[in-house]
Amino acid sequence: MEETECMKNFKIIIEYDGTDFNGWQIQAAGRTVQGEIEKALFRMTRKPLRVAGSGRTDAGVHALAQVAAFRCETRLDAGAFFSGLNSLLPDDIAILSCKQVDDRFHPRFDATGKTYIYRIRNCAGPAAVGRNHFWHIRKPLDIGAMDAAMQHIIGTHDFKAFENTGSPRSHTVRTIYEASIAADASDMNCRSRDLPGEGMITIRITADGFLRYMVRNIVGTLVGVGLSKITPEEFAAIKENKDRGLASATAPPQGLFLQSVHYRF
Amino acid sequence: MEETECMKNFKIIIEYDGTDFNGWQIQAAGRTVQGEIEKALFRMTRKPLRVAGSGRTDAGVHALAQVAAFRCETRLDAGAFFSGLNSLLPDDIAILSCKQVDDRFHPRFDATGKTYIYRIRNCAGPAAVGRNHFWHIRKPLDIGAMDAAMQHIIGTHDFKAFENTGSPRSHTVRTIYEASIAADASDMNCRSRDLPGEGMITIRITADGFLRYMVRNIVGTLVGVGLSKITPEEFAAIKENKDRGLASATAPPQGLFLQSVHYRF
Repeated sequence: MEETECMKNFKIIIEYDGTDFNGWQIQAAGRTVQGEIEKALFRMTRKPLRVAGSGRTDAGVHALAQVAAFRCETRLDAGAFFSGLNSLLPDDIAILSCKQVDDRFHPRFDATGKTYIYRIRNCAGPAAVGRNHFWHIRKPLDIGAMDAAMQHIIGTHDFKAFENTGSPRSHTVRTIYEASIAADASDMNCRSRDLPGEGMITIRITADGFLRYMVRNIVGTLVGVGLSKITPEEFAAIKENKDRGLASATAPPQGLFLQSVHYRF
Repeated sequence: MEETECMKNFKIIIEYDGTDFNGWQIQAAGRTVQGEIEKALFRMTRKPLRVAGSGRTDAGVHALAQVAAFRCETRLDAGAFFSGLNSLLPDDIAILSCKQVDDRFHPRFDATGKTYIYRIRNCAGPAAVGRNHFWHIRKPLDIGAMDAAMQHIIGTHDFKAFENTGSPRSHTVRTIYEASIAADASDMNCRSRDLPGEGMITIRITADGFLRYMVRNIVGTLVGVGLSKITPEEFAAIKENKDRGLASATAPPQGLFLQSVHYRF
């Protein structure tokens, strides 16, 4: 007797290089990560399945472990989807894992938090290798001042100053659990140079949720601190005053990586 | 009175992402690093200048600090070439420095050695981010065994076993000054996973010179050691026997980076 098809819910963890994508979310035009995965699922199942992500990432933003899920009436198991998707998907998307999960699991509603990292290559000269994976800043950044400024965003705050105008959110209060900055002078791109202070800077922020462009707006303003245009205290005041107009320009997308999505179970 | 044009010799240090190049050396067909630089120099000087590199790199191989030089009768100074080249060159080539040097300087004949690094991402799952900058090996590698094997290549040896057949070299003896292997589990691509043993492995080799494909052939065979297909003693015997047929397959180009070129002065 043939096994009957039953409704299954699959959780997938996805790594992608955002360089050649118009972001995560499927749209009328442009190549998207969700669109490519749904296309591959259609080839496997002949069913128009919808993939729900933990949230969007914008054009050019990368993910080391985005989480998504799809429901399907199928005889296929998680192993078959894992192999099938990886063989059908383009090189810039990798399915890191696929598991059948409780039918109630939803990657967005069940997420308790996310961690993003933002990479800045701080070196005086130009850059070629890895240029789609960092923001290149030529003037030396004061890491100590940036670190001092970041202390002001840890905790529960209204992050309206770091939201892009016109974002459709009911409220702008979020809780940042962790915000850190580290410089690595031993980074591959820096080791062969004699330039003092050169290094790869990694900013890491974990929060219960993020407003649109929140990480990139925080990083843009932090770089203002690093360049001594803004003091750490002024950075704190920008947050307090909830005025986007006072914050610096949004950091470019290519330095941003969704590192992980957190769930309670 | 106008300054007269005089013959000058310029040394440039170049970073490039080899992904979209058919190697360093100019050829009849295909995009090359040398070709792009010569095109940019022609646009600046209206003269068909020849750029001499410290040596070739193959298609897909990167450079963090390739060294080259060109001679030109010009009023332009090094600063003008630095800025002009960087503004004319495509994003995947960056001129890190440009200096006027002694007329006798030649990047290939004066080089006393080179350092290459080879990066291996060792993780069970698939990979997307940075995939053009490492060799992805899914089975766990025994770093200790690879390290033991590498001790056998340090010093002056005949490296015929690691040369590709048909390479036009007068002799195959080279001196390796340094050969090391290091694993970094804190690499960005590895931090978000729970897979044990996952990490970015960096092999670094400094020698007075390299035969064609020498690093990639050494790395390919070292990976055989890491996978326990070859013992470190067998690795040593392969080198001693000077038989390319015993060595493993050539490692792919995208993990290889010319890190620096050494000069006496």
